[in-house]
Amino acid sequence: MPSTSKRGNKMPDSPIRKLVGYADQAKKRGVKVYHLNIGQPDLPTPQSAIDAIKNIDRKVLEYTPSEGILSFREKLAAYYHKFNIQVDIDDIIVTSGGSEAVTFAFMSCLDPDDEIIVPEPAYANYEAFAIVAGGIIKSIPSKIEEGFALPPVEEFEKLITPKTKGIMICNPNNPTGYLYTREEMNKIRDLVKKYDLYLFSDEVYREFCYTGAPYISAFHLEGIEQNVVLVDSVSKRYSECGLRVGALITKNEAVKKNVMKFCQARLSPPLIGQIAAEASLEDTEDYLMDSYNEYVNRRKFLIDGLNRIDGVYSPIPMGAFYTVAQLPVDDSDKFCQWLLEEFDYENQTIFMAPASGFYTTPGYGKDEVRIAYVLNKEDLGNALRVLEEALKVYPGSKVKKKEKIKESK
Amino acid sequence: MPSTSKRGNKMPDSPIRKLVGYADQAKKRGVKVYHLNIGQPDLPTPQSAIDAIKNIDRKVLEYTPSEGILSFREKLAAYYHKFNIQVDIDDIIVTSGGSEAVTFAFMSCLDPDDEIIVPEPAYANYEAFAIVAGGIIKSIPSKIEEGFALPPVEEFEKLITPKTKGIMICNPNNPTGYLYTREEMNKIRDLVKKYDLYLFSDEVYREFCYTGAPYISAFHLEGIEQNVVLVDSVSKRYSECGLRVGALITKNEAVKKNVMKFCQARLSPPLIGQIAAEASLEDTEDYLMDSYNEYVNRRKFLIDGLNRIDGVYSPIPMGAFYTVAQLPVDDSDKFCQWLLEEFDYENQTIFMAPASGFYTTPGYGKDEVRIAYVLNKEDLGNALRVLEEALKVYPGSKVKKKEKIKESK
Repeated sequence: MPSTSKRGNKMPDSPIRKLVGYADQAKKRGVKVYHLNIGQPDLPTPQSAIDAIKNIDRKVLEYTPSEGILSFREKLAAYYHKFNIQVDIDDIIVTSGGSEAVTFAFMSCLDPDDEIIVPEPAYANYEAFAIVAGGIIKSIPSKIEEGFALPPVEEFEKLITPKTKGIMICNPNNPTGYLYTREEMNKIRDLVKKYDLYLFSDEVYREFCYTGAPYISAFHLEGIEQNVVLVDSVSKRYSECGLRVGALITKNEAVKKNVMKFCQARLSPPLIGQIAAEASLEDTEDYLMDSYNEYVNRRKFLIDGLNRIDGVYSPIPMGAFYTVAQLPVDDSDKFCQWLLEEFDYENQTIFMAPASGFYTTPGYGKDEVRIAYVLNKEDLGNALRVLEEALKVYPGSKVKKKEKIKESK
Repeated sequence: MPSTSKRGNKMPDSPIRKLVGYADQAKKRGVKVYHLNIGQPDLPTPQSAIDAIKNIDRKVLEYTPSEGILSFREKLAAYYHKFNIQVDIDDIIVTSGGSEAVTFAFMSCLDPDDEIIVPEPAYANYEAFAIVAGGIIKSIPSKIEEGFALPPVEEFEKLITPKTKGIMICNPNNPTGYLYTREEMNKIRDLVKKYDLYLFSDEVYREFCYTGAPYISAFHLEGIEQNVVLVDSVSKRYSECGLRVGALITKNEAVKKNVMKFCQARLSPPLIGQIAAEASLEDTEDYLMDSYNEYVNRRKFLIDGLNRIDGVYSPIPMGAFYTVAQLPVDDSDKFCQWLLEEFDYENQTIFMAPASGFYTTPGYGKDEVRIAYVLNKEDLGNALRVLEEALKVYPGSKVKKKEKIKESK
């Protein structure tokens, strides 16, 4: 048999999806599994999107332009203008989800062994997409005790080499829920300018900022307009993950030209997805407000609940719909697998994403998990109870050990 | 400004799509453009697919499994069994179009500078996908005067180096319409076995074989089951290009494992596309027969028409819905652009794909074009007339020159 590629072998297993097999097994045993592992909102897709699909009036489901349907791109431009992101229609290239936007950004900007700096924990697939492009992620740990704030600029500067091509951020952040302040964003801007780097900015969670603090887009930063490559997606804000519709936005003509070549090679983003996504951009202010209020409630409920469990700590996320929590366990990879493989509480268990997969620095995140609050409050309440009970009996639980020590005294 | 990637800069412009801007300009001038450039059938999508979309009964349009929806993969397996392709459900991974299947195949099997051998002319985007993976395409020209039959095995063997990882074929062939014989497929099998290579086999046109000669799948070849990576798509056979649904099929566990990591990184293929594609697999025998008969008629009409034009020659394609024709022009790139930019006949013009983009050997295909017969006979008739008239007045036409010489005598 011919050998497989080193790149493929090097690709990380998805920390979000690698335990799916165990979850399937649990379900087969009749155990109810609460999915906190993946950013798949349970909220309904806007009715306008469903209606657009149901009312489709086409005989041939044909390719769209490689850069996406013009009327959709026009509406996207208008949408960004509402956030004071001053981009033209020509700056917007529609992709098959945010995933493809990140892939094409890296493909277009990075050569093998080029480096990008990423504050971690970070969305795990950035590393996967970097490997796809042959690039190398240099990560700077942010700390749970600092609420995952931007690490000091000096830490970035220590990592900069002639191979450094860019900085990648996610704001509001997946997995931490952190929202970068104006001051932090200005520091990033100054770094980008000083070293002439790309700023890859994943802003798919912009609708979900909960603290009144402003959302600062990479395009709000002055003097680096040519350096910014923005990644967007309709998946999260409209609960449309299955449509596979995202966008790459840049004012840099050389980047655009390269990205378009990758777009033309794959011919077209999905037609039906674009039709539904376009419909979602109209008259969805109420929808977005309802989603927002729902996440505000869940966030409060989840974080309160987590911090009440003995040995568990979660900072208060400012945006998105995730939190990274610290658990009193030996190894969250083992714990998450054990929850699916061996544990149930009243025939229920939980599926969380071990945080180790969101760090590239070995050993980091070993006692952390990412929890997505994409379930309703009742389910979240059940999930919290399962977690609390599990920590009492998990063999690697530090809480349990403490209790045992107490008992043996 | 930071520099863009060498890979991106090296990516070829799509020969199918690079002239789109000129076509748009022609349309703006009010000229009717016949699209013979792209494999976008005009035939209707099956009603069952449209109905499945219209009847969608879901509140949340969510991610599907990374490998695709189980029930769709089950029906795909049954479909392949009808062609005596004995694959299991676990061997089938759903992708975002055939494009993603080729990309993930190369990504999973090829490292930078690994080589694959491809008979040319070949589907242009194979080269693009090879560049994405850092691989190198070594091509062997097949010849129009031999009807684009498989080049001699010795030509393949001359190109084999320690870097050679595979052979890529498309059968029935895009762009030539050639269908490999059992004898030719056996030669490929022997090569694959002798040098332990991958056989990447793009078989998306299997429904369209016109001569009674059998369709030989790579999976029909004995003894190389572990070497085959088959690429499929619903785009062409059901006129569903816009759905972006394809599949990668392999029995090689190591390849599967790698492919699944790329699949998990991009999360999910399109949900709605899979629902529609699944519906297309049922009760579409009549539909496929109608499509088949339509293409048989068009093929006869087009090839007859082409070969009647002075100086034009097309072999008779045995499958797919393309032909590569030789034209009496100096440079088909220039000619195709000129047709869109400067020419019209009774306010009509044609958009063809210059064949140079389907060869990687420089200078090849300079007087050839790929023509897709994806228009009805009336439109094909008009297109043929436009071509005939254009060749009379195109400044680089050899026919015209001959006439001029005659006149000046």
